[in-house]
Amino acid sequence: MELYLIRHGIAQERTSDRPDQLRSLTAQGQEKTQQVAKKLYSLGLRFDLILTSPLVRSRQTAEILVESQLSSQWQESVHLAPNGNISAWLDWLEQQQYPHSIKLAVVGHEPNLGQWASMLIGNQALGRLVLKKAGIIGLTLPETGSPLGRSQMFWLTPPKFLI
Amino acid sequence: MELYLIRHGIAQERTSDRPDQLRSLTAQGQEKTQQVAKKLYSLGLRFDLILTSPLVRSRQTAEILVESQLSSQWQESVHLAPNGNISAWLDWLEQQQYPHSIKLAVVGHEPNLGQWASMLIGNQALGRLVLKKAGIIGLTLPETGSPLGRSQMFWLTPPKFLI
Repeated sequence: MELYLIRHGIAQERTSDRPDQLRSLTAQGQEKTQQVAKKLYSLGLRFDLILTSPLVRSRQTAEILVESQLSSQWQESVHLAPNGNISAWLDWLEQQQYPHSIKLAVVGHEPNLGQWASMLIGNQALGRLVLKKAGIIGLTLPETGSPLGRSQMFWLTPPKFLI
Repeated sequence: MELYLIRHGIAQERTSDRPDQLRSLTAQGQEKTQQVAKKLYSLGLRFDLILTSPLVRSRQTAEILVESQLSSQWQESVHLAPNGNISAWLDWLEQQQYPHSIKLAVVGHEPNLGQWASMLIGNQALGRLVLKKAGIIGLTLPETGSPLGRSQMFWLTPPKFLI
């Protein structure tokens, strides 16, 4: 499995009358995410499925990826919300029995995505991977057995090197 | 310090009458490395200094980076040869007393560079970072103290996403 961890784009600030889950992408966040998506398309990237956190800023990011024809389908996963944990998500993933060849994109939040990538490559020191908003981490998961500590990282990029 | 670990480009195969240290970049290796260097320039990257392994394929890669105006100077370091080790190199680096703001590029070999990056971000599981020929890893080292396990990785890219 090729797994692409994509952080949502730049979003509105949190305020007392705007719950975290309703924060939208800003105009700049939308534009930058669209530019990144366009570049991913021109690089030949395509995803068989996009899974996204149910929070608005992530769903909007996933929608931009779909609009840019990087994938024809996306679905929400509660495991990708900010309070999600990797074990529950990996259990869920195993149950899906996706083909080994699947290219899966996951849209979510920091610090989760960077920490998950660290755990997948076996890094005990978390927080050492810098994943910017609309940035991407690319991983190859092993075909069998737990991916924890047994995956390979082939890509980590901030959006500024894509647009 | 911003540290860019750059693997040499595609080189001639090793043969019984061609010692490893004399292997040159192939025509394809030169062309691909030039394309990568051009892209790095257009992304606004500049290095204050390039350090390179003394082996021919690394020196040629460093020369291409200089020709592409990514840096005005380069020098060889024996610590970057395939049998070099990170402790000796870090000791040497400390002695140079470079300014904290230096942007340093290092041209060398696998598996060293990927392992060194793993050690700098504190990853005990080595060999999980995929660094292709003419690929790049970008790290931010702390201003004081040992960088081992205390650096951050902000970039890892194969050349195919740059050219």
